[in-house]
Amino acid sequence: MHNQIREEPLIEEAVHILLQAVTLQPDVENVRVKEALGRVTAEPIFAKRSMPPFPAAAMDGIAVNARDTYGATEESPLRLHGDQFVFINTGDPVPRRTNAVVMIEKVHVVDSHTVEITEPAVPWKHVRHTGEDIAKGEMLISACQSLRPADLGVLLAGGIQKVPVWHKPRVAVIPTGSEMVPPEQELAGGELPEFNSAVFEAYLKEWGAEPNVEQIVPDEPASLAKAVRQAAQTHDIVIINAGSSAGSKDFTPRVLKELGTVLVHGVAARPGKPVVLAVVDGTPVLGLPGYPVSAYLSLEWFALPLIRAWYNQPIAERETIHVQLTHPVQVKSGAEHFVRMRAGKVGGQMKAAPVSKGAGATLSLIRSDGWLRTSSGIRAGEQVPFVLSRSQNELQHQWLLTGNDDPLLDVWGSLLKQRSGRRLSRESTSRSEGIRAWARGECHVACILWSGEDEELSSLVAQEKPVQDWLLLKGFQRQQGWMKAGGYSRNGAGVRDAHHKDQTWVYVADVDGNEPKQASESDRRLKLPSLLKAAAAIAGGTADVGIGTQAAAKLAGLDFVPLYPARLDLLMTVSFYEKEGGRAMVEAFQSPGLNKRAMEWGGYNLNDVGSILLSGRGWEPGNR
Amino acid sequence: MHNQIREEPLIEEAVHILLQAVTLQPDVENVRVKEALGRVTAEPIFAKRSMPPFPAAAMDGIAVNARDTYGATEESPLRLHGDQFVFINTGDPVPRRTNAVVMIEKVHVVDSHTVEITEPAVPWKHVRHTGEDIAKGEMLISACQSLRPADLGVLLAGGIQKVPVWHKPRVAVIPTGSEMVPPEQELAGGELPEFNSAVFEAYLKEWGAEPNVEQIVPDEPASLAKAVRQAAQTHDIVIINAGSSAGSKDFTPRVLKELGTVLVHGVAARPGKPVVLAVVDGTPVLGLPGYPVSAYLSLEWFALPLIRAWYNQPIAERETIHVQLTHPVQVKSGAEHFVRMRAGKVGGQMKAAPVSKGAGATLSLIRSDGWLRTSSGIRAGEQVPFVLSRSQNELQHQWLLTGNDDPLLDVWGSLLKQRSGRRLSRESTSRSEGIRAWARGECHVACILWSGEDEELSSLVAQEKPVQDWLLLKGFQRQQGWMKAGGYSRNGAGVRDAHHKDQTWVYVADVDGNEPKQASESDRRLKLPSLLKAAAAIAGGTADVGIGTQAAAKLAGLDFVPLYPARLDLLMTVSFYEKEGGRAMVEAFQSPGLNKRAMEWGGYNLNDVGSILLSGRGWEPGNR
Repeated sequence: MHNQIREEPLIEEAVHILLQAVTLQPDVENVRVKEALGRVTAEPIFAKRSMPPFPAAAMDGIAVNARDTYGATEESPLRLHGDQFVFINTGDPVPRRTNAVVMIEKVHVVDSHTVEITEPAVPWKHVRHTGEDIAKGEMLISACQSLRPADLGVLLAGGIQKVPVWHKPRVAVIPTGSEMVPPEQELAGGELPEFNSAVFEAYLKEWGAEPNVEQIVPDEPASLAKAVRQAAQTHDIVIINAGSSAGSKDFTPRVLKELGTVLVHGVAARPGKPVVLAVVDGTPVLGLPGYPVSAYLSLEWFALPLIRAWYNQPIAERETIHVQLTHPVQVKSGAEHFVRMRAGKVGGQMKAAPVSKGAGATLSLIRSDGWLRTSSGIRAGEQVPFVLSRSQNELQHQWLLTGNDDPLLDVWGSLLKQRSGRRLSRESTSRSEGIRAWARGECHVACILWSGEDEELSSLVAQEKPVQDWLLLKGFQRQQGWMKAGGYSRNGAGVRDAHHKDQTWVYVADVDGNEPKQASESDRRLKLPSLLKAAAAIAGGTADVGIGTQAAAKLAGLDFVPLYPARLDLLMTVSFYEKEGGRAMVEAFQSPGLNKRAMEWGGYNLNDVGSILLSGRGWEPGNR
Repeated sequence: MHNQIREEPLIEEAVHILLQAVTLQPDVENVRVKEALGRVTAEPIFAKRSMPPFPAAAMDGIAVNARDTYGATEESPLRLHGDQFVFINTGDPVPRRTNAVVMIEKVHVVDSHTVEITEPAVPWKHVRHTGEDIAKGEMLISACQSLRPADLGVLLAGGIQKVPVWHKPRVAVIPTGSEMVPPEQELAGGELPEFNSAVFEAYLKEWGAEPNVEQIVPDEPASLAKAVRQAAQTHDIVIINAGSSAGSKDFTPRVLKELGTVLVHGVAARPGKPVVLAVVDGTPVLGLPGYPVSAYLSLEWFALPLIRAWYNQPIAERETIHVQLTHPVQVKSGAEHFVRMRAGKVGGQMKAAPVSKGAGATLSLIRSDGWLRTSSGIRAGEQVPFVLSRSQNELQHQWLLTGNDDPLLDVWGSLLKQRSGRRLSRESTSRSEGIRAWARGECHVACILWSGEDEELSSLVAQEKPVQDWLLLKGFQRQQGWMKAGGYSRNGAGVRDAHHKDQTWVYVADVDGNEPKQASESDRRLKLPSLLKAAAAIAGGTADVGIGTQAAAKLAGLDFVPLYPARLDLLMTVSFYEKEGGRAMVEAFQSPGLNKRAMEWGGYNLNDVGSILLSGRGWEPGNR
């Protein structure tokens, strides 16, 4: 019934099909309590002893037999002698023949053998009964409970030495791909580092599984079949990465069909569509796509529910908050889309925008703050649920910066994080996009590259935000110029307007250095999202030359021809500067670490960094 | 300036004093990326290589030189021959002298040396530039970033083998107390198991420290001084537990004063007041109270901020939700109170109530769901912030049960958790308190012990909730009777009304078995919060006899004299039964595990368990 291959089920449907088709058979192991943190109990655990294990003093004082104290009053204090009382500390056993404790504060010590009290003791007053904290036989922890630190204390208090827990599910991770090599290895021509399995391993550990990363399997059906068959016999879950889509080297579906039953091939989700779910010898086998973003998403969609089901625990949902979209989200219908977004609290409101497509996939994944999950387009301004991929705490301490790019800004952000705990989330855009985003309240700070007159810039800002509550914090100056591979000798035709561009254009030529015949001017100009990505493309030979900086050229091993200086400054509201970010930002700008890195990379001038350059109403620090 | 001893600062003030007085000097270590999960970067990390490391195909297809394709149209397809094209898979390097990829879907293969295309290629179309994902020189991770699974992937992709991280702070945990023995050890008379340090160790590990639990130090100032001095020289943080209050054996403050500077002794917080914060040889030393709840709270207040400061990270706040108080909270003024509460979503509203004081401290800690932090009393019905000590996800899957006690209910709850993922949070009260709590919508289910007529019970429920939306699910029958220590021979005077009590009363006599002379009747009757706590008190000798069950007597090693049978049933709304809990509850009742345990403990009858006994309007399953 569930064994038919469906056309693109939704994720939850695919999970259901998978869970229905497999029988998870967790085994039990007994581990020492001290080593059981995070493990999941296989049975309810009952106390083997009471705590306290004896009637115990709840106060520092004297233990007495209440009968000996009757009649004591303020007016006629009563003296106790010799064995009528015993000094006792909190937690000590109450001696036999005594049945109450008198607080030390209410005891007048006459001499070492005599005390005086002024009120009678009540039987069992200030005495903790045996088992008051934990009674023998009491259930301490139920089955299927993940053990937290304090749980360990309760188990030890209750006399438990070893605790029965579910064995962690053994998960085989089989990386595939003839071009893949272990990530530690130097790359020869055409080789790629296989790093997904290290990420899988880390996620699987976090989720309570026992991952086992196998050798990389080359793109040969027989090798893959052998590896999967073997893994399915010795593991509880098998994951193959990648080879799950429909390309000529994507053998996974075919191999799984031969070895067992393919339940699902393809889910209605983007990214993450090319997933294969199968059962081989009763073991669930997940064929996951290789593209990192899809790989990690689909791992969470399918491996996590299997692990939770293994432990009989409900599926853990990631923390979700509500955010206001600052940009529209456009998606194709027919599938659920997972849109990576960055978010931040601007003007008291949590706002989020999709991460630009141009950013590299893996890097944009770790730089994004979470996901919007949607099957249809959404307009800007809407409140949407946002699934966090970093802690809300970290998000609350995050500032959004939009505008021109410079690698030194990341160094500055790192210093900001190190010194103030604030995270900087930076998006590279053109200057005008940065100013507009800031003016619309979509980010805290706009980063502005400028080489013209201050007044011109002032009116540019005023045009977007016609109020006076803004200031421009001086960042650093940098040399702009041509970045080019060594020995480049093109004539520079078509690059005349570069001086007036603040964006990162690189100039693409034909492989022979000739002008492409039928390509238009725009085909020959390529906008890349950052200076270093432009430099990398030039170094990689797909672009000839680009406007950039000395630092970017140096980091990519390119030649640099300086043209003119430009300034990179930060535009923010006066209230943000005064009440939130100003001090921390200036301190990070002026820290020795930034200067050191700027010197090392070259082409920067950090004079007067962190000073106020311009403002909407002649504002200066201390003005009010 | 900060070295004076203050009278009870607030927690945050005390943390500030502590952080100002110490200089944390984290050292850096280089660890392999694959072992760096959760570690905190000491420096920003820059990519050592670009990814892709070469211009790569973004699609499966053929690599061509765009020039060779110009002129191709639907009407006049163009044929490419021999070395004019190369079949290529996604991710493969684009060969030299080619500059575009044509998707395989748009290629008509004529023979092994000839293909036909119907549109020209655009230079660099479907080609990923070098560095598109990660550009050499790009900052991958900033300093002071805790590494997540996907971060490891980015580092490996960027050619990083080892990553500089802060060494974990080395934290010495010194347990003290002459009566304390390691928790694995059998207890001799007066000995207590030392389990706090195992809990500290687990918390410290979770927070990213490297704990080192020392030998238990007896209550001698010289031994403590020696242990602290030694630990302060070899660790970054030292924790002493306990001995921090003012009792005769509480040497910690005095010893710390001799060894270094005491910054704070006592904070304005309950529980958790008796904290000593000091500096010895530049090392922060925390003297924390021994009472488990205070111990774990104060560890979080002071050790966590030190660890976060060590890593230059902002203090992580625990997840907080808003809940409606179902009971008033009364606290003494002059300090902040941390009130343990249990919570659950009843009728769509998250509600919470303080955990009853009667419950054992350690156990009630792990059974509670979080904390209310308040300096003043709060009325019932108010919305208050609630700091979670378990995941919100788990809380959403939690059902609240209030009413009569039976240890078999915990077994049932464990089966419920195991079978349906639902957590049962159970509070023992009298029958009438249970019914009232349910009627007021403070819990999902009331647990009712009953031995009278059904009609009487029906009118009892109707009295509290005069609507017909309720039903009574049959639980189990149990034998009620006397629980008593072996050889007990009292005459039973004063226990005549026991038959009519549904609560757990135990009868307290003098140590010689005589009636206390001046104690009132109520002094001789003690209400304990559960059957097993009553049984433990009797077994411990502070109570003579109590009304209980065969199971409780057996688990505590007591004799049992059966008196009469009683039924334990579950009262819930019809809508809860139908839409939420009914099916899962009935399944857990009828699972073999419950019957097995009931047989083992004895005195239970599980006939017709899970059937509908009564309802407000003659409702039966399938009625509507």
